[in-house]
Amino acid sequence: MSDYTLRRTVNGPYEQTVDAVRAGLADQGFGVLTEIDLAATLHAKIGVELAPQVILGACRPQLAYEALQADPSIATVLPCNVVARSLDAGTTVVEAFDPRAMIGLAGGDGAGTQDDDSPLGRVAADARERLTALLAALA
Amino acid sequence: MSDYTLRRTVNGPYEQTVDAVRAGLADQGFGVLTEIDLAATLHAKIGVELAPQVILGACRPQLAYEALQADPSIATVLPCNVVARSLDAGTTVVEAFDPRAMIGLAGGDGAGTQDDDSPLGRVAADARERLTALLAALA
Repeated sequence: MSDYTLRRTVNGPYEQTVDAVRAGLADQGFGVLTEIDLAATLHAKIGVELAPQVILGACRPQLAYEALQADPSIATVLPCNVVARSLDAGTTVVEAFDPRAMIGLAGGDGAGTQDDDSPLGRVAADARERLTALLAALA
Repeated sequence: MSDYTLRRTVNGPYEQTVDAVRAGLADQGFGVLTEIDLAATLHAKIGVELAPQVILGACRPQLAYEALQADPSIATVLPCNVVARSLDAGTTVVEAFDPRAMIGLAGGDGAGTQDDDSPLGRVAADARERLTALLAALA
């Protein structure tokens, strides 16, 4: 597992899992601002084959606003991407950019050690808890 | 300047600068896959006021594909965001997520020190050079 993502391997086919991720994001208070069918996009543009995968750009407006107040540059790492990627017919990986890594960048040490009591640290902890709950709730 | 972005302050009004960024991305071989009017989105959802700003999700398909081959988790930090944010009537900040920081995450040390000779390091160097040229070309 990469250390800049939160990841779960789900026993479920791709399309069904993408639907579950959408529902889970709504349950956790995230809107989906962007959606990229990465396999279709790269196939159309340069003809390559990737496993079916989608990037959902998730945003919880209150958290985004708090983070932007603390550091306007944080816009460059918004929204928070949640990716679903087909592994095989019955298995799908769901992986989110870990807010702790995102906020850690803004902490300047690049190591995700932003103080949890800082405004950005609190935002990251809140978002991370929601994304962890989303992954845990997947079948 | 934050150390996870590439930034330039441009003497130009917001709308004109956004147009110039779009043209510059095309010149540098990036497509724009997503576009978020961040101020309008947060105003609509929670009623807050932000300076006019847009997040353009830029992607150079060849580079994205190379990066995904090296690390499928990199999908969680794609596309590469380029933000234009109005400072005042005549000044706009243009800021991109630094590909070196992005790839540094995948290097595991979180410090952006991914070896420039690694596949991800080469992708980051290429993307960084293009984004730096884009910023340099802005009026």
